[in-house]
Amino acid sequence: MREIVVGAAQMGPNQKSDTREAVVARMLSLLDQARDRGCTLLVYPELALTTFFPRWYMEDQAEVDTWFESEMPNAATAPLFQRARDYGIAISFGYAEKTPEGQYFNTQILTDREANIIGKYRKVHLPGHSEYDTERAFQHLEKRYFEPGDLGFPVWRTQDALVGMAVCNDRRWPETYRVMGLQGVELIVLGYNTPSVNSQMSKEGLAERLYHSELSMTSGAYQNATWVVGVAKCGDEDGHPLMAGSMIVDPNGFVVARAETEGDELITHACDMDLSVFGKETIFDFDRHRRIEHYGLITSQTGVVRPE
Amino acid sequence: MREIVVGAAQMGPNQKSDTREAVVARMLSLLDQARDRGCTLLVYPELALTTFFPRWYMEDQAEVDTWFESEMPNAATAPLFQRARDYGIAISFGYAEKTPEGQYFNTQILTDREANIIGKYRKVHLPGHSEYDTERAFQHLEKRYFEPGDLGFPVWRTQDALVGMAVCNDRRWPETYRVMGLQGVELIVLGYNTPSVNSQMSKEGLAERLYHSELSMTSGAYQNATWVVGVAKCGDEDGHPLMAGSMIVDPNGFVVARAETEGDELITHACDMDLSVFGKETIFDFDRHRRIEHYGLITSQTGVVRPE
Repeated sequence: MREIVVGAAQMGPNQKSDTREAVVARMLSLLDQARDRGCTLLVYPELALTTFFPRWYMEDQAEVDTWFESEMPNAATAPLFQRARDYGIAISFGYAEKTPEGQYFNTQILTDREANIIGKYRKVHLPGHSEYDTERAFQHLEKRYFEPGDLGFPVWRTQDALVGMAVCNDRRWPETYRVMGLQGVELIVLGYNTPSVNSQMSKEGLAERLYHSELSMTSGAYQNATWVVGVAKCGDEDGHPLMAGSMIVDPNGFVVARAETEGDELITHACDMDLSVFGKETIFDFDRHRRIEHYGLITSQTGVVRPE
Repeated sequence: MREIVVGAAQMGPNQKSDTREAVVARMLSLLDQARDRGCTLLVYPELALTTFFPRWYMEDQAEVDTWFESEMPNAATAPLFQRARDYGIAISFGYAEKTPEGQYFNTQILTDREANIIGKYRKVHLPGHSEYDTERAFQHLEKRYFEPGDLGFPVWRTQDALVGMAVCNDRRWPETYRVMGLQGVELIVLGYNTPSVNSQMSKEGLAERLYHSELSMTSGAYQNATWVVGVAKCGDEDGHPLMAGSMIVDPNGFVVARAETEGDELITHACDMDLSVFGKETIFDFDRHRRIEHYGLITSQTGVVRPE
């Protein structure tokens, strides 16, 4: 048995007016709970430190920059890293990253149990649009404020396991899981900020959207025989509802822990990495069963090309 | 609206001793029911004409050959083609194919409404093994009797829709759906023969196996915004149970029709191909959102390569 006690630290809403310090105080409280429950890895959501600002249309880059971090850790998050180190709990969380070269990414990091950042992932699948869209009920401007991630889908060896990351919309794309699956991933941790309403189809209800989120994560887990931990920031951010539904999924595709609220809430599970072995050695033994000679379109072609 | 009334003709067991003619008589009965319910496309299972013979270990190639068809249609299936033509119902079914060159495939065909074969698919993802395995509760010798399909995952334009096929274990592989999704597929029809028991883990129950089958088809449907029709041959074949669970899944990943028995049973649904449009133009608009520069491993590497 190779056990990691994983905590999914679902977070309630961050309002525009909330300071980083106020948000980190809530993250510290979740960290305290995680220690009490024996976690060695705690996962927070996408854009954990701020509101989901891509819903706001901004033209002034100086204003946009206020939502980004140019260093990590920084003054606001140093207490989080310090306490995580004190507790020996590895952490993973998402934030908006501005690089020294002036690039902007939707980023998630992973630390070891000494609070050293050992992995960085930059969101590859940016949903939404880049210009103001008058057809939508509200804006989703991720393609305006971020560049697509440039680091691929790496997998890191830590806590005697192979761990990968993804962010929000990445979880709907089977390529995300498969690229990590091909590196032997055993645990994928991902955060999300997903509106409760489809901005382009209001009749699609919350239940349908929660189903799609679960379907994406459970299938990705099953088809790659890996643990998947999905963590929401949720609730009402300045009048815009985000869905909850944080969950821990086992390598058979079954949900073993699920958040019940739309607020700050810790769910945990003792995840045995060895549970991924059976699937990887039998039905999803890629080496015996995959037929890459027939997969060419997946990497040769971005969009749809219909037959004559 | 572009509607195809699709029938999923689940079939009960075929015993080793059943003749092709006896099986085709049951298929004709299902075809009659499909006409009564207004179907224009009727889908039968994998290896519809015979028992699931890969559970039997054979060394005599002449004996193996008795399970294969060297022509299609042939004497036994001619009545099925004739009546399908009379009714104007397109059909799709699976059979073991021996080619004039002496190749062996696990094949599924698709006809138009005049019973002309317009599409042929050969199963790409062969599960199981090629030599007698003393560790298994029973044998699953698909890799012994079949070669992997050599036709890829084509998509055909018929009945004003884009239709693709897959067979059984193919449905568990996201690559199957994605390669067809990249060709704009709107309806995937697939048959299966899936043992109710995991030959390598007897404690895995039927409910878990049905869940995995559903999870694979619903996620494939959702993530490619396509209809998926999965059709079982099921029930007890000479003491070996096969699971049922035939279903029709809409392009949002919801099951809209589901078989209730483990025998011959027709389920139908009027499938509007235009329901696939919204998903293909928004969240799964591949051209805007896919990032093939990060998918390389999917086609460059068959098996797992773990990081140092």
